[in-house]
Amino acid sequence: MEFFKVVSPEEAKEALRGFRALGTERLSSFGAAGRVLAEDVHSPVDLPDFPRATMDGYALKAADSFGASEAIPAYLDVVGQVPMGAAPDFSVGRGEAARILTGGMVPEGADAVVMEEFTTAPDPETLEVRRPAAVGENVLGVGDDLKKDELILGAGARLRSQDVGALAGVGVTSVEVHRRPRVAILPTGDELVDPRETPRAGQVRDINRFSLAAGVLEAGGEPETEDILPDDLAVIKERLEQAIRHADVVLISGGSSMGLRDYTVEAIDSLGEPGVLVHGISIKPGKPTIIGRIERDGEDKAVIGIPGHPVSALMIFHAFVRPVIRQLSGEVARTDVEREGLAATLSRNVASAPGREDLVRVALEEDENGRLAHPLMGNSAMISTMTKADGYIVIPLEAEGLREGAQVRVHLY
Amino acid sequence: MEFFKVVSPEEAKEALRGFRALGTERLSSFGAAGRVLAEDVHSPVDLPDFPRATMDGYALKAADSFGASEAIPAYLDVVGQVPMGAAPDFSVGRGEAARILTGGMVPEGADAVVMEEFTTAPDPETLEVRRPAAVGENVLGVGDDLKKDELILGAGARLRSQDVGALAGVGVTSVEVHRRPRVAILPTGDELVDPRETPRAGQVRDINRFSLAAGVLEAGGEPETEDILPDDLAVIKERLEQAIRHADVVLISGGSSMGLRDYTVEAIDSLGEPGVLVHGISIKPGKPTIIGRIERDGEDKAVIGIPGHPVSALMIFHAFVRPVIRQLSGEVARTDVEREGLAATLSRNVASAPGREDLVRVALEEDENGRLAHPLMGNSAMISTMTKADGYIVIPLEAEGLREGAQVRVHLY
Repeated sequence: MEFFKVVSPEEAKEALRGFRALGTERLSSFGAAGRVLAEDVHSPVDLPDFPRATMDGYALKAADSFGASEAIPAYLDVVGQVPMGAAPDFSVGRGEAARILTGGMVPEGADAVVMEEFTTAPDPETLEVRRPAAVGENVLGVGDDLKKDELILGAGARLRSQDVGALAGVGVTSVEVHRRPRVAILPTGDELVDPRETPRAGQVRDINRFSLAAGVLEAGGEPETEDILPDDLAVIKERLEQAIRHADVVLISGGSSMGLRDYTVEAIDSLGEPGVLVHGISIKPGKPTIIGRIERDGEDKAVIGIPGHPVSALMIFHAFVRPVIRQLSGEVARTDVEREGLAATLSRNVASAPGREDLVRVALEEDENGRLAHPLMGNSAMISTMTKADGYIVIPLEAEGLREGAQVRVHLY
Repeated sequence: MEFFKVVSPEEAKEALRGFRALGTERLSSFGAAGRVLAEDVHSPVDLPDFPRATMDGYALKAADSFGASEAIPAYLDVVGQVPMGAAPDFSVGRGEAARILTGGMVPEGADAVVMEEFTTAPDPETLEVRRPAAVGENVLGVGDDLKKDELILGAGARLRSQDVGALAGVGVTSVEVHRRPRVAILPTGDELVDPRETPRAGQVRDINRFSLAAGVLEAGGEPETEDILPDDLAVIKERLEQAIRHADVVLISGGSSMGLRDYTVEAIDSLGEPGVLVHGISIKPGKPTIIGRIERDGEDKAVIGIPGHPVSALMIFHAFVRPVIRQLSGEVARTDVEREGLAATLSRNVASAPGREDLVRVALEEDENGRLAHPLMGNSAMISTMTKADGYIVIPLEAEGLREGAQVRVHLY
């Protein structure tokens, strides 16, 4: 019988925390959409770099509109129209106004823009203003949006559409981002066949290669899948050695044959130092997970032995591998939902053994009382419970279960 | 002065609901990760198609273990070991047991698997069982996970890692998915320059082309960007006509020059029937939004005039265009968070004008009292408020604002 000393999920996470963010590359800001910044980005310019109108209307001196009302409008001389995309070649003096559109440059002398709807132009040279404008109203001053040298985005931010827009707006056309982690996936198991084949009795179609690769894509990594490996120590050592040369993370999805877990441990240890750090985690599903770290060419590579069972494999992927991929990507989670999951109320009792952390798949439902998390019990071996689930909850190590009505955090898939 | 009849946000959404999901294509199941199913997928086989062990241990007749305890173990004859990936060439009779590993085929005659840790093997042919096993324990029966013809995933599901895994597991190697919507982005505006250029006085760098393209990618569409168009009706008509031939959605991001909104309306109407449906929405930001529908070659194309202002452009994108892209993709939202946003408590009063829906950007923070949504006030023209925001809340048409402590739903970016 094999023996391994299981560690707590917290100790396993600790072993994974040692991996640092990967090196960087310079990309065009648009090409960096969805990637993670490796540098703080400061604005090289004031934005805007001229006073801009934020509404269609008339630029004027605010003082000229003070006291204006429906009953007693102010009357001003229209001295011109601000062209789009160019500086106006006139200024606005006392008693004067200029037609201006959103985005136009507020002429010298003017300090406010009165909205079109509060004005009438009885003739092209006269403006009737029916409401006072405050100084600075409907004007975005120089640097009001972003000042020169102001921080726009910090290292660790995954670039969203508005972030890409802000970079374009200040002329930052390229940024330093972290490399996407390359994740090699090695499925092993004498019982596995390619999904295109019809399995014979006792054989099953390989699931992990595809579900793990899709998971890597979802987490922002680049998956590289291998063909199914036989349960053969020499072959496994050789393929692991090949994979670790170019991958940042190697996932070896274990078959189930007697010696394979020991093979995996031996093969990982043969790759270099420090080797296997964790061999077994007090978690369900996923107890026989192996975590190794190998130093190669000055870089730490993560080699993770994933249980062969498809449900265990994906749960361990979500709970341990996905966070590592994000960590290697340099990503800092933006919201508490990303960090801790979505709050929900448990819809019924779930039992658990103390001394073991349970990852329980749940489906979410919203009713008038809030968000419910329905535990999907079934057999934990069923992949169909994964397709029905929206996420999972964690029943802590020391708990004997959670009661109906308990407040839980759902980690979304 | 231009005039347009604004409609309510609900009417604008109604105008967009008419667009049907796009045509389909057949992809390998792995290649379809992240895409939306256009068909219900049923399992072509029972999964598993043989009784599988879900634990390492011994296959036996449960009845032979009844009454077994630490004090009085049951003793059985070990008749063999189940090979991985093949049917055992023996059966298990009364008083017999066979070594089996997770995923192995339970031999004929056996109806349970007792876990390794509750057994001892004093010699290779004898097994001591210290705990009773129930019938079916640690065995996944034929079809227990998925029965032949059972629904695995319904049309409208965006394929996640576990979904791809389930398809592989039952040998569904290709699926019918909706085409990704092609979204053409036409930036217009005499004041715009490419972000690589240094703007002269009155000019600004083009933001929308990049932020909208990144937004399209986030929503699962394929962006196609054009160079900046001048504010010239003939050119705009020609480029719109070219774009509509191959794109499913055309976004024309309006400049600000006097006649351009009318140009856009005229140009959209010139493309075909029914033409412009909405010209102005009672919403802030984004009032001058234009929604058109053009029938071309039997397909309805959405042509949307997006306000030129970068913040308005992105807000309208998130509130109106992103839902259309998902609708064209055939996607059915899985969770209430996707449909309605994330619940939070407003951290301070926000004023609004009745008769107008306000989209207010918020930053999320979690403290001991729950999740707070901090309104990012600043000037609504500031792109920097978008980079600081995690999402936005909607202040309804009829409301005069929302009070500190109000329960809100945050639509995440």
